Amino acid sequence: MPSIETLRFLTEDTTRKIAAQFGTPVFVYHAPTIEKIAQNALDFPNAFGLTVRYAMKANPNAAILQIFDKLGLHIDASSGYEAQRAILAGIKPAKIMLTAQEMPTDLVELVKKGVIFNACSLRQLDTFGQNFPGSDICVRLNPGLGSGSTNRTNVGGPAASFGIWHQDLEKVFQIAKKYNLNINKLHTHIGSGSDPAVWQKVAIMCLDFVRKFPNVTTLSLGGGYKVGRMTHEPSTDLKKIGQPVRQALLDFHQETSRKIHLEIEPGTYLLANAGALIATVQDVNDTGQQGYQFLKLDTGMTDLQRPALYGAQHPIIVVPQPQSQSEELKHYIVTGHCCESGDVLTPAPGDPEALMPRLMRSARIGDLVVIEGAGAYCSAMCAKNYNSFPESPEVLLHADNTFALIRRRQTLEQIIQNEQPA
Amino acid sequence: MPSIETLRFLTEDTTRKIAAQFGTPVFVYHAPTIEKIAQNALDFPNAFGLTVRYAMKANPNAAILQIFDKLGLHIDASSGYEAQRAILAGIKPAKIMLTAQEMPTDLVELVKKGVIFNACSLRQLDTFGQNFPGSDICVRLNPGLGSGSTNRTNVGGPAASFGIWHQDLEKVFQIAKKYNLNINKLHTHIGSGSDPAVWQKVAIMCLDFVRKFPNVTTLSLGGGYKVGRMTHEPSTDLKKIGQPVRQALLDFHQETSRKIHLEIEPGTYLLANAGALIATVQDVNDTGQQGYQFLKLDTGMTDLQRPALYGAQHPIIVVPQPQSQSEELKHYIVTGHCCESGDVLTPAPGDPEALMPRLMRSARIGDLVVIEGAGAYCSAMCAKNYNSFPESPEVLLHADNTFALIRRRQTLEQIIQNEQPA
Repeated sequence: MPSIETLRFLTEDTTRKIAAQFGTPVFVYHAPTIEKIAQNALDFPNAFGLTVRYAMKANPNAAILQIFDKLGLHIDASSGYEAQRAILAGIKPAKIMLTAQEMPTDLVELVKKGVIFNACSLRQLDTFGQNFPGSDICVRLNPGLGSGSTNRTNVGGPAASFGIWHQDLEKVFQIAKKYNLNINKLHTHIGSGSDPAVWQKVAIMCLDFVRKFPNVTTLSLGGGYKVGRMTHEPSTDLKKIGQPVRQALLDFHQETSRKIHLEIEPGTYLLANAGALIATVQDVNDTGQQGYQFLKLDTGMTDLQRPALYGAQHPIIVVPQPQSQSEELKHYIVTGHCCESGDVLTPAPGDPEALMPRLMRSARIGDLVVIEGAGAYCSAMCAKNYNSFPESPEVLLHADNTFALIRRRQTLEQIIQNEQPA
Repeated sequence: MPSIETLRFLTEDTTRKIAAQFGTPVFVYHAPTIEKIAQNALDFPNAFGLTVRYAMKANPNAAILQIFDKLGLHIDASSGYEAQRAILAGIKPAKIMLTAQEMPTDLVELVKKGVIFNACSLRQLDTFGQNFPGSDICVRLNPGLGSGSTNRTNVGGPAASFGIWHQDLEKVFQIAKKYNLNINKLHTHIGSGSDPAVWQKVAIMCLDFVRKFPNVTTLSLGGGYKVGRMTHEPSTDLKKIGQPVRQALLDFHQETSRKIHLEIEPGTYLLANAGALIATVQDVNDTGQQGYQFLKLDTGMTDLQRPALYGAQHPIIVVPQPQSQSEELKHYIVTGHCCESGDVLTPAPGDPEALMPRLMRSARIGDLVVIEGAGAYCSAMCAKNYNSFPESPEVLLHADNTFALIRRRQTLEQIIQNEQPA
């Protein structure tokens, strides 16, 4: 029998209970899975201490932030709004580092509260210096290498706009000198996949930059630790990629006597497989013998946009109505609820516009489906309110299978609350 | 001198005034342009009457709906939420047709109010029949042809999930008979581009379906009328593609004595070039001589996602600070404010992951930029709240250059208003 994807942390019974209580679509996050994966991250090999920052853009719900906070993780905020949001969730400002493309208008307020600032451009460094001369500061560098090719969008290398270009170090030193800034942290983020050999190279390259900053005591390697959502997709083994990093830190100490504290900033890694989206089959239709069978759900790019955006693959598991005993398997194209040809949940891998039929249990209208791998960059990065669909509720599931609502479903009135007559 | 894109309906002065009053990013819609384009749509060639329905998913702001309503356009709603939203904006329910992938839970309430229902699947037809036996109904067909290839996402053809497959007509007749439904409208939407020859073929094909439905008095050809946003991109000439449609309707009348009322459902066509997004240059950085110059804006996929989603091209015009006299041109990669490598506003055409430097006026931090072509599917279809950025305000600009706020900027408190402790 061909293998199909199966439920991860949900059971059919729990899936039905959550759907019955909150309606669908509804996101569910599994606290024990989050805690287990967070522990993996906290065990990242290091030589002289480690800080794990949760990249909160992956999923900024306060309840999620609070789980990580309790486990001892710190926060990577990608905008001033995110930093404020984390503070509102009860995170101590000193545990928040702000690494933003857009300089927040409330930078001074945030930094005065204790938020750590990571200067991602010469302009940001200069503005910080003007406001906080004599302060400690982190600097983000683009080391000139990324994990992609040179004219593709990327987080490092010449095609990446993130961080200060490695050839501009002299300008960094000038600005630091002008404002008497103490650069005590360096940050890079080049998205380096799961090959330990690549990580060895990255760590050595980053430490070569640390060498040029005598006061740096902390090196952040950023995030980008890929995890497979589908069973057949590989996941990064942090222990494996971390070993050469640890060795590089030890070698650097041997050579320079400097003990460099390590930081990492996982987002996807921490949450991707700890979340699921429960939806309902709205319709089943087909386009004839030469065509496709379609499963239409009451969710889509308004909740989960990664398939439409990247051709990303998410497991989709049918949870039939209890009386159903069918074990039949079928190939379906699963589509979203938007009037949008691109709102497809089973695109070809990496190709959002091509269809790829997926083998699943045979489904009927009214059956539930669970879309796995929906913990990170789904609720947080979706085409919210397109076709005027409301933001979906979010539920936290505990080890004993009890669950709590951590975000209510948005109402239509809330969607239009800021409109006003011309 | 190489040609660069220029402002459409805004002036530099008005751009600065709107930015000063409401901050950036801010959407601006130009009422006179909307009215002029709406008139083009109302002039679509027809033989026995025309209804133009505005596909409100393109931009559902109440003020926009009200403009079209006053001009005599009707509404195409793509979800029950959209239908309710149009009613809240003051649109008469009888002017709203609901063409939805997801069966609204409040279908009965909507239809009782007077909303016209377009059954897009056998299941939808059956559910409607159960609730409203003996009623008039519209049926959406997938005629088996689309404007794309067969295994790509599409709005018509075997790869499209939209509408009832053309080989299932017998089932349609059975359901209609069972509930004594009067199918008086047929709907197709196959996205047929701007070639009049294709439209001739489409019209004749659709009328062949009308032939099989003796009570049909209205044929809707849906939307999908492409418009160029960049100066060099072609736009659909409705007069040209409408002529063969009109001729087909006349021929059909000649043959059958039936006078078929025509409907069209433009969205992009009506609004794309009547809207712009004003943003501020946040940063200018580069990746060296072999790299790129980046302009970083305070907007991005959180307001305008079409480049990241489709590799769509939007004109981007620098509006320098008033004292600046520089006429220098430069090639820039324009990036958004999200910590996301794909948040690029100048991708290669049709290839969201490749970078394509754009020739523009030289820009400095603090300059404004106007992103044109942002009236349709921008504010309405964006990765809202990603990186916790708020929904942007919307402004309506009148012929006399006065303007009014039609949506306030969202607050952080609103973004998190539905969160609750676990």
